[in-house]
Amino acid sequence: MSKRIAVLVSGGGTNLQALLDAQARGALGGGEITAVVSSTPGAYALDRAKAAGIPGRYTLSRKDYSSSQLYTKAMVQLLRECAAPDLVVMAGFLVILTREMVDAFPNAILNVHPALIPSFCGKGAYGLHVHEQALAYGVKLTGATVHFVTEEPDGGPIVLQKAVEVREGDTPEVLQRRVMEEAEWNILPQAVALFCENRLSVEGRLVHISGGAT
Amino acid sequence: MSKRIAVLVSGGGTNLQALLDAQARGALGGGEITAVVSSTPGAYALDRAKAAGIPGRYTLSRKDYSSSQLYTKAMVQLLRECAAPDLVVMAGFLVILTREMVDAFPNAILNVHPALIPSFCGKGAYGLHVHEQALAYGVKLTGATVHFVTEEPDGGPIVLQKAVEVREGDTPEVLQRRVMEEAEWNILPQAVALFCENRLSVEGRLVHISGGAT
Repeated sequence: MSKRIAVLVSGGGTNLQALLDAQARGALGGGEITAVVSSTPGAYALDRAKAAGIPGRYTLSRKDYSSSQLYTKAMVQLLRECAAPDLVVMAGFLVILTREMVDAFPNAILNVHPALIPSFCGKGAYGLHVHEQALAYGVKLTGATVHFVTEEPDGGPIVLQKAVEVREGDTPEVLQRRVMEEAEWNILPQAVALFCENRLSVEGRLVHISGGAT
Repeated sequence: MSKRIAVLVSGGGTNLQALLDAQARGALGGGEITAVVSSTPGAYALDRAKAAGIPGRYTLSRKDYSSSQLYTKAMVQLLRECAAPDLVVMAGFLVILTREMVDAFPNAILNVHPALIPSFCGKGAYGLHVHEQALAYGVKLTGATVHFVTEEPDGGPIVLQKAVEVREGDTPEVLQRRVMEEAEWNILPQAVALFCENRLSVEGRLVHISGGAT
């Protein structure tokens, strides 16, 4: 039976689009995106979901909740009642969720981080800041990582990583875009497909991929 | 005028061999390896140097010195008096040198580290331990980094990096060998060539490469 996928977004939804495109061309391991939840009212990601005919489109605004924990509980309830997902994908979702989320969907939440973890991750390493950190450090390679979400920020078991070149004169914005185009939009759908094909197994910090990554 | 290169080694000297091979095929930017210094008596690297006709072959045994500082002073003296290098390359050199070395050859010492710095570097991250750490963390990509040596262990400005895939079932030994073959033997000669062609300039933590990396 095909897996039900819920995608959490906060903004423009380019990673969501990569997932929608993969599904359209049959490259999501048979998985079906049934719900998109935005933390931002009016996020363009919701328009993308509508254009792709995704039935469940929800806004759960962070501003309507007084704490991360209350927001997380509402998110878990929304997902359970309206989406019943087999897999939750955080695709540029910029709100911090608490442990109730991980408890509700153990080893069933994927996140994409725009660096080669353990480099440039953890507290303060989100959005453009990640690329600012990489450029300030002077690395010549960066990239993206898809990992299972655990309680430790950016610390969960790693599914896939892809390297991207840093070039002379890069700004954080230019590097961010290159990491998206060359890494995130590639490995996020690939990791979701592997999950939907039941090819991922987690053993401690290690993710085993049956049949290899390709 | 061609640059004089001194290479510091501790063991088998496979990275030295990569440099010798590059020089033989004219791919070292006109640089010439004039001296090889081993911290270990009888290291096979010295045989490689002899076979390649390198005139200066020295052993400076760490055991003959009571402190890192005294050893470093002897190393600086040996290099200055017998080799007068424009560039010092640490190629699998496992002895810690003190700041006198950096002061003697500022922005003129290159080291190769078998990971994508800032991942898996610093204290305790040397030799096989680096690969043990990478496998324990569960990364799917690792690699190698060539950087200028500063006082901070593995913390100097980065010249080149290359990524290498981690595969299911890898042992530290298997991964170490793959990182050598696919990354170290490639980017170390390349970085040395860039230095010898005067194409590297250091600005704070950043290494600018005139004309790009290739």
